[in-house]
Formats: sequence, structure tokens, C-alpha cells
Amino acid sequence: MLIYATGDDLASGQVARSAARGGNDAPTSGVASGVVQTNFISVPRDWAYDVLLYAQRNPKPCPVLEVIEDGDFESKLAPGSDLRTDLPRYRVWRDGVLAEEPTDAREAWAEHHDLVTFLIGCSFTFEAGLAAANIEIRHQTLGRNVPMYRTAVDCEPAGRLRGKLVVSMRPIPADRVADAVQISGRTPAVHGAPVHIGDPAVLGIDLDNPEFGDAPAPLRDGEVPVFWACGVTPQAAIMESRVPFAITHAPGRMFVTDVRNESYTV
Amino acid sequence: MLIYATGDDLASGQVARSAARGGNDAPTSGVASGVVQTNFISVPRDWAYDVLLYAQRNPKPCPVLEVIEDGDFESKLAPGSDLRTDLPRYRVWRDGVLAEEPTDAREAWAEHHDLVTFLIGCSFTFEAGLAAANIEIRHQTLGRNVPMYRTAVDCEPAGRLRGKLVVSMRPIPADRVADAVQISGRTPAVHGAPVHIGDPAVLGIDLDNPEFGDAPAPLRDGEVPVFWACGVTPQAAIMESRVPFAITHAPGRMFVTDVRNESYTV
Repeated sequence: MLIYATGDDLASGQVARSAARGGNDAPTSGVASGVVQTNFISVPRDWAYDVLLYAQRNPKPCPVLEVIEDGDFESKLAPGSDLRTDLPRYRVWRDGVLAEEPTDAREAWAEHHDLVTFLIGCSFTFEAGLAAANIEIRHQTLGRNVPMYRTAVDCEPAGRLRGKLVVSMRPIPADRVADAVQISGRTPAVHGAPVHIGDPAVLGIDLDNPEFGDAPAPLRDGEVPVFWACGVTPQAAIMESRVPFAITHAPGRMFVTDVRNESYTV
Repeated sequence: MLIYATGDDLASGQVARSAARGGNDAPTSGVASGVVQTNFISVPRDWAYDVLLYAQRNPKPCPVLEVIEDGDFESKLAPGSDLRTDLPRYRVWRDGVLAEEPTDAREAWAEHHDLVTFLIGCSFTFEAGLAAANIEIRHQTLGRNVPMYRTAVDCEPAGRLRGKLVVSMRPIPADRVADAVQISGRTPAVHGAPVHIGDPAVLGIDLDNPEFGDAPAPLRDGEVPVFWACGVTPQAAIMESRVPFAITHAPGRMFVTDVRNESYTV
């Protein structure tokens, strides 16, 4: 059930969208921490079934929170929103190649009359829970974007879509890893528990060279790299599958909604 | 992650499918209690996006566990299975009207070359958890099918599909209701926590007259009717939306898989 925010939490989501509409393109980790953030992908109607099926088969990286009908751009998760302008920065993809990174997607949007939009859960949603348990969110401390990696792990293909799993990484003190698993595990609709803990090599990852976001600082003694499935995974599929046209968010720059994190807590 | 059963649990699932293939059409509540059971719906490819979108918008009644490609009839949840024969009983729908209830769907299946099949989570999966907590599953005690009700609650429409929410009901002693909520809530992919507790009138339900399954025995003193979202919900949508052709399971007569209930526990 959707639980809409009130008071300061509601205001903080609205302020974040307003800032994005005004051109602020900072990453959104830690912003409006009481409400859900989402990944964003719009494709022409002809590709919608492929995307929805890809998401169904890969629910850890692609938990779909909302599907918005052909041509519409208002989310039920944030009444009054305009998905063409309310994210900090977008990516426009042509034949699987990143073509532009505008802060306003209206021009690209106007190229297709039948874009279907998918809002996909984001791990920034459970960062509030980690922080409430006094688990440091290192990339927030450093003022950086979260590091995201394209792994060597294949997602389940669907229709014309195939691609690798993308993960985000947070360094967690070894004695808090179990807490981080349990806290994030309570929100399966926003990636849930980690997909991998402690061994980047198995995922084919070089920790210092993320494909998306910012490189992390070196891990401290006693810290373990913990990997969560990431909603940038559809972007990896867009590239590998050479989707003719798509608009997505820029990694780390999410759609901030009006619904409380508790909407997706089990 | 899919966790496949071994030993007796694996054997019990295989025995259940074999019995169904041989014509046994008994309800499957309590059968092979260590493994997941699923609802079943097959529609022509032209309707697949509508069904998948309807499921995405109504995740409590329609948690999709697997989508099987056009024309295929083997489930990854039960390698070697034949979905046309391995359920106890089917329903064939024509223009939204129940036309036949065969124990073998091969003849109906052959009418369309491009059937896409959806396996949807079933509350029988968490009955094992309730029973392990010494919560009586009354319909099992009585040897009846679980009562299922078409409520007055509208599901979110999607494409050409619209319909009412269907729920299953189990009477639970008042001092165990919280346990039943928490136990079922740990498996959100198989309907999860109840959608309603204690007041059938609000759902527009007459407890003595379920639309599907068997009527319950009168509740005992101190028992509360607890309602879970039910995977028969797509059948209500088939009826109301007059879908030209569909094959489903007969209510209460599910597809028994080879994967452990723990596959879907958070």
C-alpha cells in the first residue's frame, strides 16, 4: 500500500523535485531521506513488454514500482510531478549508445508519442534505514556519488533484452554486515538484501573502477565491500541490446517521490 | 534465488504432479508442503502485456513467479514438468465465460500456438509456516477446499483488463492473528501479509457464500476471519474483461513445483 508522506517529509520530496526542475543535477543519495527514490526508464510502447518481462525475470535489480501509460509523464508516487523535468539529469540512448545527458528531457521526450515509463526501486531508499542504525553511508560522508559496477553476471534475458547485472557498493564494517543485510532485506521492493558480500573478483569487479558513479575511497581496515543489485541494470541492457530509443535517469540522480519508505517495508 | 528441493520434499512435489497427470483432481492445500505451489494462467501472446501489467499493478493478488515464453509449457520451477497436464484440473475460458474444466489441457492448448503462461504465487505456500507455528488450517482439517471470495474491491486496471480483488479466508484464533500476519508477511512473493482482518462486510463478502472453493464451517468463538489476496484474481479479470481465450487452473488445484518455500522468504 502506498503511504504518502506528510509535513517535513512531504516538503523535502517536493523541494528536491523543484530543485531538479530548476537545474540542480547533484546526486540524490541522502536527499529527502524519508521518501522513496526511483530509477527511471522510458521506452517506446513497442519495447514495453520486453522491459516489463526483463524486470519480472530480474526482480532484484529491477523491482518495478510503477508503470506509466503511453505518453503520460505524471507519477502516482508524486502527484503533480512531471517526469520529463523532475529528475536532476537524464540520459538519452540511441541504438544503445549514450547520445545526450540533458537536465530536462522534454525535447527528447517529444520525439516519441508513445513512451512507456518504468519507475524502479532504488537502494537509496534503504540508506535511511542503514543510517538510522548508525551505519555510515561512506559516499554520503565523502560527498560523492555511489560507485556502481557492471558485473560479469548475466541477467535472465527477456524478449530482445539481455545484459549484465549492475550493482552498487557500500563498504560496511564487518561487525555490521549482518545488520545491513537484515535492514535492507526488509524492503525487497527496493532491491532488498545484498546480492553479494565480500569478494569483488567473483563478480568480475575492479573496485577502483566503477562503470557508473564515482570511484570509492580505499576501504578501511575491517570493512567489507557489500554489493546490492542496482536499478542501473536496465541501462546496461539498453546498451548491450542496442535498444533503438530510451530515456533514463543519469546514475545516482533519481526521481524523488512523495511516498514514505514504509510503503515498501515488509 | 530459486532453492530446489531435495530428498523427500523433491519427491513429494514430483508425486503430486504425477498424480495430477494421472487424473487426480483433489485440491492441493497441504500437499507437498515443503515446496511452492502456484496459480496458473495462459493467454495468447497478444494479451501477455496486459496480464503482466495487471500483475505489476496488483502485486498482492498477482505476484508473478515465472513467465513462460510463447508456446512453451515447461516451468523452470519444476524441470521436466508439462504445464498442460501437471495440474489437477483446468478451466478453459472463452470470451470471459467458463467453457470447460478438463483435467488435461492439451486439447485446449492446441487451439493457440502462442500461449504465454504466468505462474503466480499461492497462499498455500505459507500454510506450511502457519502449520509449523501450530496454527490450524481449518479447511485442511475439514478436508475441504479453501473458501475464496470475489470482493467489492476494484483492482488497478491495466490495458484491457479490469476486475475485482479475490481473497482467500482462513479463520484464526484472535490471539494468533498477529503471528499469522508476521509469518505470511515473510513471503511477500506468495501474497504476503493479509489484506484485511476481521470484517467481511467491508470487503462486500458473505462468509457463507464463497464464489470459489468450498463454504467454510461456521467460525468458532474467538476466531477472526483473516483474508489474504488470492491468485484467482486474474480469473475474475478474465470474466469481467471478456478475454477471448484463456486457460487457468481450477481454484484450489494448483501447480506444485520443485522449489522450496524458502526461495521466497525474506
